[in-house]
Formats: sequence, C-alpha cells, structure tokens
Amino acid sequence: MEKFNYGMVGLGVMGRNLLYNIADNGFSIAGFDLDKLKVTELEDGATAGTTVSGTDSLEEFVAKLEIPRKIVLMVPAGKPVDAVLENIKPLLTKGDIVIDAGNSYFKDTNRRVADLATLGLHFMGMGVSGGEKGARFGPSIMPGGDLEAFHSVRPMLEAIAAKVNGESCTAYMGKDAAGHYVKMVHNGIEYAIMQLISESYDLLHRGAELSNYQLYEVFKDWNNGELNSFLIEITRDIFQQKDSVSDGFLLDQILDKAGSKGTGKWTSEEALENGVAIPTIDAAVASRTLSSYKDERILASKLYPKSEIAKPGNTELFVQEVGDALFLATLISYTQGLSLLVKASEEYHFEIPLKDVVKIWRGGCIIRSSLLETFYAAYTEDPNLSNILLNENISKLVKSKISSLRKTIGFATSNGISTLGLQTVLAYFDAYTTENLPVNLIQAQRDYFGAHTYQRKDQDGVFHTQWESTNH
Amino acid sequence: MEKFNYGMVGLGVMGRNLLYNIADNGFSIAGFDLDKLKVTELEDGATAGTTVSGTDSLEEFVAKLEIPRKIVLMVPAGKPVDAVLENIKPLLTKGDIVIDAGNSYFKDTNRRVADLATLGLHFMGMGVSGGEKGARFGPSIMPGGDLEAFHSVRPMLEAIAAKVNGESCTAYMGKDAAGHYVKMVHNGIEYAIMQLISESYDLLHRGAELSNYQLYEVFKDWNNGELNSFLIEITRDIFQQKDSVSDGFLLDQILDKAGSKGTGKWTSEEALENGVAIPTIDAAVASRTLSSYKDERILASKLYPKSEIAKPGNTELFVQEVGDALFLATLISYTQGLSLLVKASEEYHFEIPLKDVVKIWRGGCIIRSSLLETFYAAYTEDPNLSNILLNENISKLVKSKISSLRKTIGFATSNGISTLGLQTVLAYFDAYTTENLPVNLIQAQRDYFGAHTYQRKDQDGVFHTQWESTNH
Repeated sequence: MEKFNYGMVGLGVMGRNLLYNIADNGFSIAGFDLDKLKVTELEDGATAGTTVSGTDSLEEFVAKLEIPRKIVLMVPAGKPVDAVLENIKPLLTKGDIVIDAGNSYFKDTNRRVADLATLGLHFMGMGVSGGEKGARFGPSIMPGGDLEAFHSVRPMLEAIAAKVNGESCTAYMGKDAAGHYVKMVHNGIEYAIMQLISESYDLLHRGAELSNYQLYEVFKDWNNGELNSFLIEITRDIFQQKDSVSDGFLLDQILDKAGSKGTGKWTSEEALENGVAIPTIDAAVASRTLSSYKDERILASKLYPKSEIAKPGNTELFVQEVGDALFLATLISYTQGLSLLVKASEEYHFEIPLKDVVKIWRGGCIIRSSLLETFYAAYTEDPNLSNILLNENISKLVKSKISSLRKTIGFATSNGISTLGLQTVLAYFDAYTTENLPVNLIQAQRDYFGAHTYQRKDQDGVFHTQWESTNH
Repeated sequence: MEKFNYGMVGLGVMGRNLLYNIADNGFSIAGFDLDKLKVTELEDGATAGTTVSGTDSLEEFVAKLEIPRKIVLMVPAGKPVDAVLENIKPLLTKGDIVIDAGNSYFKDTNRRVADLATLGLHFMGMGVSGGEKGARFGPSIMPGGDLEAFHSVRPMLEAIAAKVNGESCTAYMGKDAAGHYVKMVHNGIEYAIMQLISESYDLLHRGAELSNYQLYEVFKDWNNGELNSFLIEITRDIFQQKDSVSDGFLLDQILDKAGSKGTGKWTSEEALENGVAIPTIDAAVASRTLSSYKDERILASKLYPKSEIAKPGNTELFVQEVGDALFLATLISYTQGLSLLVKASEEYHFEIPLKDVVKIWRGGCIIRSSLLETFYAAYTEDPNLSNILLNENISKLVKSKISSLRKTIGFATSNGISTLGLQTVLAYFDAYTTENLPVNLIQAQRDYFGAHTYQRKDQDGVFHTQWESTNH
C-alpha cells in the first residue's frame, strides 16, 4: 500500500480544515482522532481526487505514514498535547517530525523540543492563524524550531498558506519555540486591535448615535481605505447581521462579557518578564476582565449615573477623526507587539526575522491589514529596526493622524466613554517621544525611602543621598 | 546564660533596624550575619540598656535562643532565603518558628511553609513596609500563615509596629502566604501612586512651569490637606533638596530611568493570573519600562518634536484640579489593588481580612495616607465590599473629584504630556460604571472568525452564528 505524505492528529474544525487544505494541494494525508464520528465524516468532506484517509487507531495511523513521518498536531493546548506525545512517541522512529500547530504556550514547546530530541525526533512549534476559513483556504503559518525539519515540510507549508502578491504567507520564524512565540504576540496584537475597534464603535454608536446601518457604511468605507484589514471587514459585516430571534440586529442582543483563550494574557506576562512596555495589549486584556464584572458594573452604573453625552457637532468630521485615531492606534498596537518580539528574540536567542514576520502577517491571519505592507517596506529598509516608530516613513503617517487621536480622546474623556485602549496608545506615544520624563522624581522617592540609589544626568555612577525631611 | 527571646538573620540596614526596634521594646535579641563587620557594629548601635548580641556563627546563634526559637529572617528574596533555610533547618527543633520578613514571592513562601512543616517547624511569611526608618521606629507589619505561631510572636509585633490612634499597625493577614501577598499588592499600589505623583509633577512643572520652590509649596499644602500621605510628604521634601555637585536642585540632576525590584511586576502578573483588572498598576510598571528606553526616547523626540505647551490660563485653579485628580487617582489605585486581594483571597483560600489590611496600612508603610481612614470606615460598614467604589461615602468623594480628573487629562492629552497612569484611572472608572460596554462587538468578532460562541442579553445559553460576509 502507498504510504501517506502527512498525518494529522486532531480532526476538530481546525485540524480537519487544515488537512483538506493539505490534501487539496496534492499531498496525501491520513487523519487520526479518537472520536469515531469525526473519522467517519472525514473522507466524505474531502475534495474529489484527493488522497485522504481517517482512523481512530493511533497504531494504524502511524503505520500509514511514509518515513520520515511528518505529523501535524491540531489539538487543544496544554495537557492534550502532552497526552498525544506520550501515546505516539513509542510508535515513532528516529528522524520523524512532529509539528504542533495549536496555540501552545511557548515554554511548553521548548520543553517538548528537548524531550523529543532525546529520542532523535524533530519537534516543531508552529503558529497557524486565520480561523476556520483560513485553515481551509490559506492561513498565515508561523513555523519555528528545527531548521532541517522545517526544510522538509516547507514545500507543503508554502503550498497551503495564504498568498499575497504571489508570496506565500509562511516563513521560518526562528529557533526553538519562535513559531509559537510569534503566534502568541500575533494574538496579543489581535486583542489590542479588537479592543480599539470596539472603542471606536462605542464612540460612533453611543457617542455620535450612529445606527447599525450607518456603522456598516462607515466600516465599509474604512475597509476600502487605509484601514483595510480583516478585522475591519468582519466588523462591517457584523453590523448588518440580522437576529433570528428578535426583529433587530444580532449585535444588539449579544451580552457585553468577553471571553478569552489566554494568549493575550501570556503576551502581557511575557512583556513583564522581559521588561517591554506593551500598555495597549495590557489594556485589551484588562478591558476583557472589566467586561466580566457585569453585575458590579450594573450596581456601579446606578451609583454613578452618566451625564448626557454632548454629541459631536459635525458627525462626518467626527467619523473621520475616529477613523484616523483607530488607524494610528492600530499602528501603535503592532509597534508594541513587534518591540516585544525584538526583545524576546534577543533574550531567548530565537533569531526572529522581523521582516518575515510582517511579511507573512499580510495575508491569511486575523491581524492581516494593508498597514503591514508599510511595515514590510520599513523592515526591508532596516531589518534591525528596534521600534517601528523610528522609521521615517512611518513617522510621517503617525504625524498625520496624531491630532485626530488627541481630539477623539478629548471627546471620550469629557463624555465618560471609556477608551482604555486608545488612551494607552496616546500615553505610550507621548512617553516614547519625550526625552525627559518625570521619572527622575520616582528615582528620588525610591532613594529617599529605600536607599535604592539613582543615576545622574551629569556624571556616570550610582548615587545615594541622605534626604532631608522638612518635618520639624 | 540567659537565652534570647528572638533571633534575627541578616544584619543589613533593614534587619539591623528591625532588630534594634525589637530590642527597644524590651525583647532580648541575637543577630546573625556572615559579614563579621556587621556583627561587630551591631552592639555599638544598640540603645543603652537593651539586650542585643551578634555572631557570625549560625550554630552559636541558634544555641543562644530560648525554645521554641523565634527567628526572623531579613535577607534578600529568592535564593538567599532558601540558602539560610537549608543551613538552619538541621539546627532547629520541632515547634520552632521562622518568620521571613523580606519581600519574598508568595509562591516561594507557600513552598517553604510546606517544606518546613514536614520537620514540625512553623514558617511564616511577613510583609514589612516603611523603609529603613519604618523598620527602626515603627513599620507596618503584615504577618500571615501559621496562626499558632502568629499568636506567640504577636506581642512583639504589636510592640514594634507603627501606631495610629493607639492601634498597632499589624494584624493577621490570613493563611499560608497571605502576609507576603498583601505586601506584594501594597507594593503594586505604591508603584501606581508614585507614577501618579510623577505625572502630577510633570503637569505642574513642564505644563504649568512651576519652579521647585513653588512645587514644594504645592506639595506642602497638599500634605496638609486630604492628600496627606507619606509619599506626598517626601515628595514635598525632595523639591527642596539642594544638589551638592551643581548649584541647583538635586531632582533636576537625577536621570529619568527608573529601577524596580519586581514586586510591581508580580502584582500585574497575579492580576493576569486571577482575572482582575488593575490597569493603573500595569501602567506604572509599563511606565518604568518606558523610562528605561532612554536612548530610543532621545531618537524619537527628534523625529517627533513636541509642539509648544499651552500653559493653563489660571495656574491656581490648575493646581487645584491636578490635586483633585491625583487624589481620585490615588483612591482608584487602592481600589484596584484591594479588588485583587478580594479575588486572590478567594482563589488561594487566604481569608484576608480587608478591614484589617487598610487598618494596618494607615501607619508605618510607604502607602500610608489619610485616605485609608475613609476606607477603614467603609470596610467597617461592610467587611465584604467587593470594590471600594461601591461604598456610598466613597462614591460622594469620587463624584466631587471626577471632573477635575477629566480636565487634567484634557490638558495632558492636548499638550502631549504622557499621563498613562491618570488615563488608566479614568478609563477604569468609566468602564466600571458603564452598564453596557461595547464588548458585545468583541464577542461577535470572536464568534465570527473563531466560532468562540457568545451569550445573549435576552436569553440564557451559549450561541454561535454563521455570520454572513458581504464580500461579493
């Protein structure tokens, strides 16, 4: 019997779709899942003429694969991955390749790379973004780890990934767990942009009283302009989705309590660990948490009734300012995430190629946007750019939008509309572009009460002062 | 030979001062340090008539103590604590009490409690705040863990702690590592308040061009009013400290790069872990990080030159508004920290008595302030208050200040003065007091691209929709 080129463990929506995508591109692929139903349905859903086969026996599955085996895992992060590895390890032979395509925590990936290496097995962590549809028709794929293993699966990855200007949205993201790390930061940026879009919606809806019809038109315009991106596009569509229960729009019936899968949280934790400032991603995580305090918010809204909102005088101008603010805020969300990648790449010796990161984010993934083309140009000019704001062309873009961001925040803060995300963007920008921050005072305080010492502007070294109290 | 009541391991500034404080209160105490010089100097610094003795031999030290031994550790957090424990464990006997008074990470404390319990030894984690002076003359002391052990050291703790209205600033903070946990959150709040004071300084100095003399007067007034607190008091003094090198004020010569010891970071990590929103503490940590990007900030300040600041029209009014904003922001910093304690107490079964927490923070510690008296009243009324903003009296205070906070942020954002801390305070308040946040949109997006499902306002359950694209 002819052996299969690839194997897929986990036939949930994402795993099945990725499997079909691989099969459609001319690779034969076997699927494994403990759930018999998923196995039965697998072959029915395959494109005619492709070579797909399913089984619920792990032994049979492994035996079906050509050697060296190339096995993709698409199972929930955490214990399920370890469980699969424990079961499959005894069945594999030296040189086989196992690729974890789930949203695994990067430290788990590092541990598994080391563990499987002791058996001569290649383990790769690989981020896949694009949701169900992306997996089926072209995701953004972020592989990292063993370079030799990467080269042997590269043709398949390039075939199944999304394409932008004929270029495939996949590239080697660096050593060890770099693939999962890049995906984690991708998701952190995704949190930030979603938060910023929701704030813009609030400003236009609660602030300027735009209807869902009008919001649809605004987001349609935005998506046809420089804000063009996947998240703006789907938001546009959300505004026109009718509810099947009530008479109105579905959006108006959805409860304002956000869930999360943890990757935003991991990004904030990593920034803390590595001393990188990503306040907008932090704000997005905190905002989802705040949303979960629904009962307390109802109590608080009664204790602190809102004043009436002073509608903007010129709605058209307001819409344009909010759009500019959102554009700039999105840009600075990427900025923060990318600056974390720069630092993490150094700390963990990942050797992440920033230019390739923004290149493969241009298509397939949730945070794909036209703006990434501009970033790609910036990193092409200087692949070692420490912060995207330091690029000359980007600076022109930023300067053209900054006053709209200030005005938008002015409207929000004076009217009691919370814009935690937008405000952290502005504060980040204003701090980053300030030569002298008031942090000299913090150093003085720390030295005063804890003898933590300080540095001076006029000479090198570390100093401590016996501060004088004026309590007499 | 008469045995000593207490032992102190670690005779650095904090350990020595705490030892003298204990001795001054009528307890005999032996000190141990590997550094011979510190041992030699110990007895010289003791108050006449007190019973103090030092040694650099751990065996001798342990032999000097009455049984059950009561040993306080004041050594740097992390490995040094474990090293001391490894060395001292074989010398101790069942029933002895070891109290870690350093800034240990609470998870380390939990581990050590369990480890020493296997030998029948009582281990307590205890937060001590107040810096050098506090340790010497009356700190705020946050003990937690073994209740029996607590009762046997309680008389000493109550004697050495700061006093407010005749009440001692120490109380049992709860089970296991509760003492260190409360201290960690104390430090997170400290980070936030220091950040907010530095922003207020920036607004008054860079924004309204107040001189150091004028700032001294402003902070003196503030400290005599409702802003009365240790951090405002020392900030007042910092403005009048002359430089010994240059001719001017020391503050103007201090470099604007802040250091940190990690407890602020831990607080943010814990909030992420437990799903609590503390954006102002997060902002304080991020701001210290931003301050460390000094070289990039210099580059960025050239690429993005600041516009001239439009000075406030009425300086006196501006100072009052900034003071009110700072007061409210300080209040909401405590709010966020206390809400983390509520959640952590549940999660870890610490049983932290919130009322006692604010009671013992009223004196001795770095974040002591008159405001804590108001909180103490609120928790006396309702010890289970989930968020301090929900107290009626507090709500009156908040409402009287909120418009000043909005105006202050308006000034800052329109003039390009970064106020990450103040802005997160306002955004937190505005989100917390809003019944319907725009998070319904985030849930719609998540369901659109990832089938993550959503809840509805009008019926229970979990829903998923096949969202329609309008791409044709």
